[in-house]
Amino acid sequence: MRILILNGPNLNLLGHREPDVYGYETLADIETLLRQRAEDLGGIELDFVQSNHEGELIDAIHAHRDWDGIVINGAAFTHSSTAIADALSSITIPAIEVHLTNVHARPETWRHHSFLSPVTWGQVSGFGYRSYLAALDLLYSRVAEEEQNA
Amino acid sequence: MRILILNGPNLNLLGHREPDVYGYETLADIETLLRQRAEDLGGIELDFVQSNHEGELIDAIHAHRDWDGIVINGAAFTHSSTAIADALSSITIPAIEVHLTNVHARPETWRHHSFLSPVTWGQVSGFGYRSYLAALDLLYSRVAEEEQNA
Amino acid sequence: MRILILNGPNLNLLGHREPDVYGYETLADIETLLRQRAEDLGGIELDFVQSNHEGELIDAIHAHRDWDGIVINGAAFTHSSTAIADALSSITIPAIEVHLTNVHARPETWRHHSFLSPVTWGQVSGFGYRSYLAALDLLYSRVAEEEQNA
Amino acid sequence: MRILILNGPNLNLLGHREPDVYGYETLADIETLLRQRAEDLGGIELDFVQSNHEGELIDAIHAHRDWDGIVINGAAFTHSSTAIADALSSITIPAIEVHLTNVHARPETWRHHSFLSPVTWGQVSGFGYRSYLAALDLLYSRVAEEEQNA
Amino acid sequence: MRILILNGPNLNLLGHREPDVYGYETLADIETLLRQRAEDLGGIELDFVQSNHEGELIDAIHAHRDWDGIVINGAAFTHSSTAIADALSSITIPAIEVHLTNVHARPETWRHHSFLSPVTWGQVSGFGYRSYLAALDLLYSRVAEEEQNA
Amino acid sequence: MRILILNGPNLNLLGHREPDVYGYETLADIETLLRQRAEDLGGIELDFVQSNHEGELIDAIHAHRDWDGIVINGAAFTHSSTAIADALSSITIPAIEVHLTNVHARPETWRHHSFLSPVTWGQVSGFGYRSYLAALDLLYSRVAEEEQNA
Amino acid sequence: MRILILNGPNLNLLGHREPDVYGYETLADIETLLRQRAEDLGGIELDFVQSNHEGELIDAIHAHRDWDGIVINGAAFTHSSTAIADALSSITIPAIEVHLTNVHARPETWRHHSFLSPVTWGQVSGFGYRSYLAALDLLYSRVAEEEQNA
Amino acid sequence: MRILILNGPNLNLLGHREPDVYGYETLADIETLLRQRAEDLGGIELDFVQSNHEGELIDAIHAHRDWDGIVINGAAFTHSSTAIADALSSITIPAIEVHLTNVHARPETWRHHSFLSPVTWGQVSGFGYRSYLAALDLLYSRVAEEEQNA
Amino acid sequence: MRILILNGPNLNLLGHREPDVYGYETLADIETLLRQRAEDLGGIELDFVQSNHEGELIDAIHAHRDWDGIVINGAAFTHSSTAIADALSSITIPAIEVHLTNVHARPETWRHHSFLSPVTWGQVSGFGYRSYLAALDLLYSRVAEEEQNA
Amino acid sequence: MRILILNGPNLNLLGHREPDVYGYETLADIETLLRQRAEDLGGIELDFVQSNHEGELIDAIHAHRDWDGIVINGAAFTHSSTAIADALSSITIPAIEVHLTNVHARPETWRHHSFLSPVTWGQVSGFGYRSYLAALDLLYSRVAEEEQNA
Amino acid sequence: MRILILNGPNLNLLGHREPDVYGYETLADIETLLRQRAEDLGGIELDFVQSNHEGELIDAIHAHRDWDGIVINGAAFTHSSTAIADALSSITIPAIEVHLTNVHARPETWRHHSFLSPVTWGQVSGFGYRSYLAALDLLYSRVAEEEQNA
Amino acid sequence: MRILILNGPNLNLLGHREPDVYGYETLADIETLLRQRAEDLGGIELDFVQSNHEGELIDAIHAHRDWDGIVINGAAFTHSSTAIADALSSITIPAIEVHLTNVHARPETWRHHSFLSPVTWGQVSGFGYRSYLAALDLLYSRVAEEEQNA
Repeated sequence: MRILILNGPNLNLLGHREPDVYGYETLADIETLLRQRAEDLGGIELDFVQSNHEGELIDAIHAHRDWDGIVINGAAFTHSSTAIADALSSITIPAIEVHLTNVHARPETWRHHSFLSPVTWGQVSGFGYRSYLAALDLLYSRVAEEEQNA
Repeated sequence: MRILILNGPNLNLLGHREPDVYGYETLADIETLLRQRAEDLGGIELDFVQSNHEGELIDAIHAHRDWDGIVINGAAFTHSSTAIADALSSITIPAIEVHLTNVHARPETWRHHSFLSPVTWGQVSGFGYRSYLAALDLLYSRVAEEEQNA
Repeated sequence: MRILILNGPNLNLLGHREPDVYGYETLADIETLLRQRAEDLGGIELDFVQSNHEGELIDAIHAHRDWDGIVINGAAFTHSSTAIADALSSITIPAIEVHLTNVHARPETWRHHSFLSPVTWGQVSGFGYRSYLAALDLLYSRVAEEEQNA
Repeated sequence: MRILILNGPNLNLLGHREPDVYGYETLADIETLLRQRAEDLGGIELDFVQSNHEGELIDAIHAHRDWDGIVINGAAFTHSSTAIADALSSITIPAIEVHLTNVHARPETWRHHSFLSPVTWGQVSGFGYRSYLAALDLLYSRVAEEEQNA
Repeated sequence: MRILILNGPNLNLLGHREPDVYGYETLADIETLLRQRAEDLGGIELDFVQSNHEGELIDAIHAHRDWDGIVINGAAFTHSSTAIADALSSITIPAIEVHLTNVHARPETWRHHSFLSPVTWGQVSGFGYRSYLAALDLLYSRVAEEEQNA
Repeated sequence: MRILILNGPNLNLLGHREPDVYGYETLADIETLLRQRAEDLGGIELDFVQSNHEGELIDAIHAHRDWDGIVINGAAFTHSSTAIADALSSITIPAIEVHLTNVHARPETWRHHSFLSPVTWGQVSGFGYRSYLAALDLLYSRVAEEEQNA
Repeated sequence: MRILILNGPNLNLLGHREPDVYGYETLADIETLLRQRAEDLGGIELDFVQSNHEGELIDAIHAHRDWDGIVINGAAFTHSSTAIADALSSITIPAIEVHLTNVHARPETWRHHSFLSPVTWGQVSGFGYRSYLAALDLLYSRVAEEEQNA
Repeated sequence: MRILILNGPNLNLLGHREPDVYGYETLADIETLLRQRAEDLGGIELDFVQSNHEGELIDAIHAHRDWDGIVINGAAFTHSSTAIADALSSITIPAIEVHLTNVHARPETWRHHSFLSPVTWGQVSGFGYRSYLAALDLLYSRVAEEEQNA
Repeated sequence: MRILILNGPNLNLLGHREPDVYGYETLADIETLLRQRAEDLGGIELDFVQSNHEGELIDAIHAHRDWDGIVINGAAFTHSSTAIADALSSITIPAIEVHLTNVHARPETWRHHSFLSPVTWGQVSGFGYRSYLAALDLLYSRVAEEEQNA
Repeated sequence: MRILILNGPNLNLLGHREPDVYGYETLADIETLLRQRAEDLGGIELDFVQSNHEGELIDAIHAHRDWDGIVINGAAFTHSSTAIADALSSITIPAIEVHLTNVHARPETWRHHSFLSPVTWGQVSGFGYRSYLAALDLLYSRVAEEEQNA
Repeated sequence: MRILILNGPNLNLLGHREPDVYGYETLADIETLLRQRAEDLGGIELDFVQSNHEGELIDAIHAHRDWDGIVINGAAFTHSSTAIADALSSITIPAIEVHLTNVHARPETWRHHSFLSPVTWGQVSGFGYRSYLAALDLLYSRVAEEEQNA
Repeated sequence: MRILILNGPNLNLLGHREPDVYGYETLADIETLLRQRAEDLGGIELDFVQSNHEGELIDAIHAHRDWDGIVINGAAFTHSSTAIADALSSITIPAIEVHLTNVHARPETWRHHSFLSPVTWGQVSGFGYRSYLAALDLLYSRVAEEEQNA
């Protein structure tokens, strides 16, 4: 089972950037936690991509479209990128939208609308690094069931 | 650890009602799955409340406000009940908003706004019965950590 | 043939409440007229439910979901209750939305939007007690035809 | 008793046009049904006008303004014609707005607003050809009562 | 003189719930203060109703409609309940809308609109427990004057 | 000097239609007053066109485009007809928009917007039959001055 | 007959200010033209007030409230002053709103809404200095008729 | 204890202006009632300012900013004056917004928004002259308590 | 192959009307160009209809509904006619919406919305007379291919 | 004659991605068709650029600004990229906006607005691969005519 | 070179009013800083006007319209005064809009719109007292260059 | 002192692109002017970055986050880039938003909203190349003062 973990703009600063909002874990910490969980679940192959470039995120989605699923934290692009939305609707594997923060509870109204939500399987938002872990579990559970049924 | 699983209007029809939208699991099926997981996680006590009456849901929130957490599927009240929102902000334990369907991807625009989101810890939506399981895991993980740190 | 006549909040005051707006017939008068018509049409069984409690109206819809049809005057809940709308879309029998007044001609703009309209067979509004009679006729005509064709 | 049955644009194609939306009855079929019902009710005189020209519909309203009532299916003009609305408010006889389909449940948002509603006695919408029959019954019932009281 | 003091959802938690927002007085404290003032004003009979159920609040309004006035703190229902608004417009005695907090100064925009305002005599908002006392004084002053003039 | 007086839908009923709103003068009365004033001003040639058909109003504008000016009471088309607006911007002679009533003070919000205003010289509204007389005076004054200057 | 000519902010610069928009006549020129017309009509007494101070315009309306009419060019206050609107609705004599330019055709959208329109007899806009003359004629015609009928 | 009673535009006409809306008491009557109550409460010093000039109201707020409180009826400025709002937020003494009428129940939508509400302690609206008396009582009660606690 | 070229209101003035906006070609010029191209493509039969009457355009659509395609320049009706939109959705042959100007780049915002777009095959706008030629080519290409495949 | 064919994000997946929406032709197929047509028209030089990176599309526009024209399918960037819009308004050669699908008929409302439309010569949308061919023809026709006139 | 420094309502309280928002400098401090800078730049003559009266600010703009430039901090009038906007567009000298705070970052949405921006040369906002100094420098630089070029 | 000068999309065409809007200075000219001023101010180190790629601008912000300040002309990204806004709020050094043109006075409404404003120290817009110089002065003044105070 192969799953892409895709991270959008400014997430490279995680842990350093506004830690009271986004928490003290760095993106590397989250990667470590996810790799550990992937191993626990039985050897899921993970690929990590972070980019501040919208085009690179789209390219990564295209490049992994024969994998088994995507966990995407679109960060600010969640709220502006019609192109990433179209990339996600161009593929047939399930994607889960994750957010570290509860985006609907934040003061900027533009954070309350997501272009990605209508083209993903579902959302997990608000739980810090745990959002990623829950998303990995959910994708694993679905893909494993589908493989079993196949 | 004690956690309330709160279900809003019409969820008593689950499995029978529009199964292509909401899936074939009944609310009893979901309760069985959750009780099993609660046992696996080490004996979490669960209380299940379902009601078509807004007031009973509010009463349930009040009655459990010294428990450890709430998993709430507000169903249609998610999008209309300012009173449940106030009930959730009246208490200090964490609540997770869950939805069986990806509410942001549904055609009715009124399903795209939630009064509960701003007063919950986070949301898990779109994963069918798995939304409940993920929410239980997330609450368990947080409360366990807090107990450990206490 | 069994048909539920469902009446929402404040309709218990009918005849007493703002008669220049809602007319001088009481809900009991309307019940009498409908029972007479039901008998004329050939022994339709009617059940009458009125409640100021949204949850009781939802419960009534659930309880009658194997009947042949529903005539619903949602009153103020017409314009606010996403939960009754979901209840009506949870069932498969036809429902007709009725209003005593021409809601689209009333000054409060919130009366111009109905959550029930998209999930009912159709609407009859503006004709006072006659709205109920016309709705009963329409349901009878459809169900009778369907029974004939079955 | 004399009643005008007024039909707006494209209704001449009824039965041929999008039958899954509008049904298989032609306008001639509906005329036959209405004439039969008019006879059953005791010799109501009916006039039928259909036009794709807004001005002809207005002229027809003016020409029948000393009749006893109007059943109007404004079709697309329902949602755009301020002039037909003014024509209806220029006269003193009751008019009923009918629609074959449940206009509030259709996907185009412009079908959700009616310029005619505020200036008619009431609406009957969603019941196919039965909408016309119910409207005729309602007008008959009111006019007969008024004649009786006069 | 008989006056109903009506309290909406979550107000049973008053004093315990977000005291920095709503103050430290419990609903019982407010009842004590009001009963004392009622006595001082010359033996006004007070009835206290608090409910988290919209329907019970409507029922209470109906049940007291031959009393002399109502002081209503609709709490969250203020901003969502078309049915309580209709209940208030169904009766002929004066009602005063009160709020503990200055609802127009609070950050949630949905608190800035009240369905009750257009159907009440007036509003007193922002003064904590004093809002209730001022409302009682105002009702007393009006009813006393009307009795004197009668 | 030749001036077209153009009248839109339902104005043929003037004097009979809602006289408390539109006054007791018929369109013929207004024509008489205008012809008298035209004569007083020194033999202005007037043409009167009234139609309930949008297309005929457009045709009339085209047909008189080498005259000296237009006084147009678009009636309900004022608020809906992009085509009459385009007709007026297709010609080079001045047009004045008149209204019998003060359209901005009327309750229907759709009467507050005019498609004609941006393509006319100016508006005179609210003065009953006097609106037409003032418009004729204004056009005369301008054309006379332009002829004098030519 | 006594009529107040009231001019709002920046009109003191008329003739100097953006003459391509507002014309080359100064306010003094317009006063001269109006006094001449007033004399022609038979000795109407005119008072001229121009102020850049909203309060002085309100005071002027109050001070002349036993005169026979007001011609008001509110200029920029037309679009912002709820207080002048209230002043005009406080009095019982007719007021006419005038504008030099066709405000509905100007690019700034805030010029398309007038707080004064709903509380005046009518509007004359777009005709430069002629707007004032037409307004004077209209007021004269009405007051003269009323005096004749009295 | 010193309290400023501040009255906005057109309130000088009170009693004469639209008495069916605003009541028959003049501003002088209200002053008399307030002075009497101030004396009853134990010698509160009152200052009365009424102006149709926004700037004078701001100046008055500044001039009294070391007094104990302000009762402000902003009248039409309530709905337009960002500058008075800023003046009230510039000072540290409590202000109460009062209205004679129930502004939320009036037909003009611009009366439903107040720039002052977010920067005042609270509102009392709808009770005619009694609004002022209640506001004075409320301010007295608070200031007296604060003095007692100091 | 038979194709209808349908032209809406004011297009009869083409070449004369605002040539800087719409170009110097008359409608006759465009007809000549299209007939020449139709001949070049191999004998396509063309019918030309222009009308300022919405109803005549609808009639023309109905009358040609067994032809092979429609090129429609709805002109101002593009932005207002729900009835022409319904006429186009009533038929099954392809229609192409054309515009001489780039409607999305024009200053009037009402030109930015088309009722016809959702019910046509596609749009060609902005290229002057070339828009018609491109539309003819596109229809020819599609119909020819369909005939070949049939 | 040199023309740039510019393709936005996700168009590299054409033919594979949602073929029921976008058709079965790949971008390579479209390139082949266009090169063939370019040759037929007499040796137009074409450059093809596709990128998922907004910046590369802007760079391409800059790099070709001394060519003769641009055919741009902005794909998802059509609806979000103010920067590509500015790039197109920075150059002086004509650009045509093309879309494979009829964007105005698609369910996502964000597809109904284009930032590019106001700064292009015109649009061709809805005709699948034929949109590109028509755009090439239109550019050729204009440039050839301009060269002939030069 | 002569430059007017114009300050709107409540700025007389600067330094005393909400210093955490507006800083600790008084308006006198800012005047001192500006006069020093004016001298440094080579003897610019400055006039300082502060008023809480909109009309006085308009009068000041008129009075200085033959000076060389205006620095205006409209304070709250920035967001409400159409009349000051018209005053600024009535004159031909450049004006710069300054704000002490970053108005776009403040929580009140009404502070995000400026009526002055469209009619000024540019804005400098957010830099406290430095906003004034930068504005003076910018005006000096432009006027000096224009004088040099003249 | 080290300051980054960051320039967004299409600014590389400055001087060539729409010079009547953006002026005749090239970006190189502006760099020269800024370097000269930086030297005059006492050896400020400047870095210049221009890119049409949103991601590169974000990378540049990250790379300079231990410098002393940023002057950013986001160009079109100002109005669309939530990601650059997040980048600016991720860092702790002050940034100033500059614009060559007065963006609030331009006709496209999307230029009136800036995602960057809420996360910058302030804005300088409308002064052509002088906007950059003023921004450099302001940053220098603040940083110098902070260094002095440190």
